Amino acid sequence: MNLLLENIAKHVSLTTEEQERVLALTEVQHYKAKTILLKEGEICTHSFFVTKGILRSYNIDENGVEHVVSFACPGWWIADMYSFLSQRPGQLYIEVNEEAEVLLMSKENQDKLYIDVPKMERFFRILIENSLVAHQQRLIDNLSFTAEARYDKFLKKFKDLAHCIPQKQIASYIGVTPEFFSKMKARLLKK
Amino acid sequence: MNLLLENIAKHVSLTTEEQERVLALTEVQHYKAKTILLKEGEICTHSFFVTKGILRSYNIDENGVEHVVSFACPGWWIADMYSFLSQRPGQLYIEVNEEAEVLLMSKENQDKLYIDVPKMERFFRILIENSLVAHQQRLIDNLSFTAEARYDKFLKKFKDLAHCIPQKQIASYIGVTPEFFSKMKARLLKK
Repeated sequence: MNLLLENIAKHVSLTTEEQERVLALTEVQHYKAKTILLKEGEICTHSFFVTKGILRSYNIDENGVEHVVSFACPGWWIADMYSFLSQRPGQLYIEVNEEAEVLLMSKENQDKLYIDVPKMERFFRILIENSLVAHQQRLIDNLSFTAEARYDKFLKKFKDLAHCIPQKQIASYIGVTPEFFSKMKARLLKK
Repeated sequence: MNLLLENIAKHVSLTTEEQERVLALTEVQHYKAKTILLKEGEICTHSFFVTKGILRSYNIDENGVEHVVSFACPGWWIADMYSFLSQRPGQLYIEVNEEAEVLLMSKENQDKLYIDVPKMERFFRILIENSLVAHQQRLIDNLSFTAEARYDKFLKKFKDLAHCIPQKQIASYIGVTPEFFSKMKARLLKK
């Protein structure tokens, strides 16, 4: 079964016609590693549902340093939510980490979907609730956990895929410099 | 007009009967400053809509240091979203900063409301979308903005209410120690 429909079936039950409508409003794309799907200042016109590979979102500060906001593995959605919802220029980059297959859904089609398949309003509400919980958790982690504890949470969250993510991106995600991260890992290995 | 109904009317249009149903499912409470509405380890059974005063959510790290996650002013909702949505024990404290009037909505009543007034599903979806955007923004700010820029954003976000919030809570919200915050403010005044 299609990974997106599997994902939807966890939360709402669609008829075959409704499933077809969902798929008709999405578009499959294949991307090579390092393809940039969104840049700072652009409008995020689509949200991306990963079926293969890994995507990541980040922003670049005024000193040119990249800060990873999130990774998206198969079964996850990724977007610059501010830009996608408001259809105004955003702050995030979205880039392909590993050769990927992605389902794209435009803001326009998502709005259409709410009308054609009202159950999808419930699905996206639940999805956004889960994303909000993940963001609230990440904020708490950044405010009050040590770098070691954040690394531990990263490993648990991304499990088997963690080894596919470059060290410097992991360092950026947990909010430390690559140098600090190397020293921390060396310290953890000695334990 | 009731502040909650005003808030809802910005996003969905309710009939008089629907408005009455919303109000019937909420409960007004008055709290003195420093009342703790939720503690770490408890289940967040209600979400709180502030009509007067200020509430804040925070967590306490293993060294006993408080980290402010958010403030809620009149017209804003506040909850431990993880705990509220999952009905499992959470990590956050919610405390009354300034004598407050609050509308409480239980998880049970919110679920009822989706059935009785389906338009409210749309309202809460939009609300959660906005909250997600605010969390994503806060995460980007924490990862890539300087403390001065974060303070500037805090002042813009909380405008007239910023002067009601104790300095050490502002320091905690922007993620610096009270000592660093005092020095930073002194530096800003000299500019």
